[in-house]
Amino acid sequence: MGRTADYSKEICSVAGALSVVGDPWTLIILRDAFAGVRRFDEWQSRLGVARNVLAARLKSLVAFGVMETRLYSERPPRHEYILTRKGQDLLPVLLTLKAWGDRYVYGACGAPAVLKHSCGADLEPRLVCDACGETLHGRDIKGAERNDAAPPLGEVLAGEALAGEAAE
Amino acid sequence: MGRTADYSKEICSVAGALSVVGDPWTLIILRDAFAGVRRFDEWQSRLGVARNVLAARLKSLVAFGVMETRLYSERPPRHEYILTRKGQDLLPVLLTLKAWGDRYVYGACGAPAVLKHSCGADLEPRLVCDACGETLHGRDIKGAERNDAAPPLGEVLAGEALAGEAAE
Repeated sequence: MGRTADYSKEICSVAGALSVVGDPWTLIILRDAFAGVRRFDEWQSRLGVARNVLAARLKSLVAFGVMETRLYSERPPRHEYILTRKGQDLLPVLLTLKAWGDRYVYGACGAPAVLKHSCGADLEPRLVCDACGETLHGRDIKGAERNDAAPPLGEVLAGEALAGEAAE
Repeated sequence: MGRTADYSKEICSVAGALSVVGDPWTLIILRDAFAGVRRFDEWQSRLGVARNVLAARLKSLVAFGVMETRLYSERPPRHEYILTRKGQDLLPVLLTLKAWGDRYVYGACGAPAVLKHSCGADLEPRLVCDACGETLHGRDIKGAERNDAAPPLGEVLAGEALAGEAAE
């Protein structure tokens, strides 16, 4: 599936998330899904990515339950791809990447796109502690309590792949 | 530098952020930097990544201003790598990846690590609108206003690489 780093020995949720969505193009495909793209040819023409790469990424996202397929034409049979709840919950990952890219990559060039929140403001996301509501800073976060029972990622993902196959 | 997707034609800050930190291993290297790792050999022994790959990733992070080097031994000369402000501001990206991985990859296995906020709670990050403070949901975000003057990423990054070289 074109994975280019083997995180299977890591016992880590960051590595876990990246194992599912960290492949080249995958987060860009998901960005477009949030913008309403559902069909193979639309991604292909927007991204100019090789068809076999795009097909592999979509297949992987479906296998991991990030997207699901829906039949929109019976003859010929054609599927579109819809974000599941699991996929929709990647929104904070994409918004924090966008905010950082706006600030530190585009910077003085200006953000390529400005999103609007329903409150009327230009969208500026801010990450807070769910318990106290304070903005999160590194200095306020204490080292991790390790869960010694958590298995390496290779085992977790093998189980998930099996579950995905069983559900198909 | 081992990049495996060419986003240079994209006019997009998500693609921009991924062009800087989206390489395999890069976000894992940064995760360890947030946990206090500063030295080449410590990353190497924690990650088991090939030395040439690690060296290339660290060099790229320094070139993009995400980390800076500091001499900690004069004979032999040895450098350690410190997150800049630009690097520290990637914390929300890592925390949102971790939260998603905790929930959807590790799930019932339990999170491999629990962080603590200075308020005393186990850290659960939540992304809010900076203007109104409401939790962000996709349904409350309106389509983007495009900035037609924003250049493709290839041009932006070429300028940034030049600026990085000039600063060295």
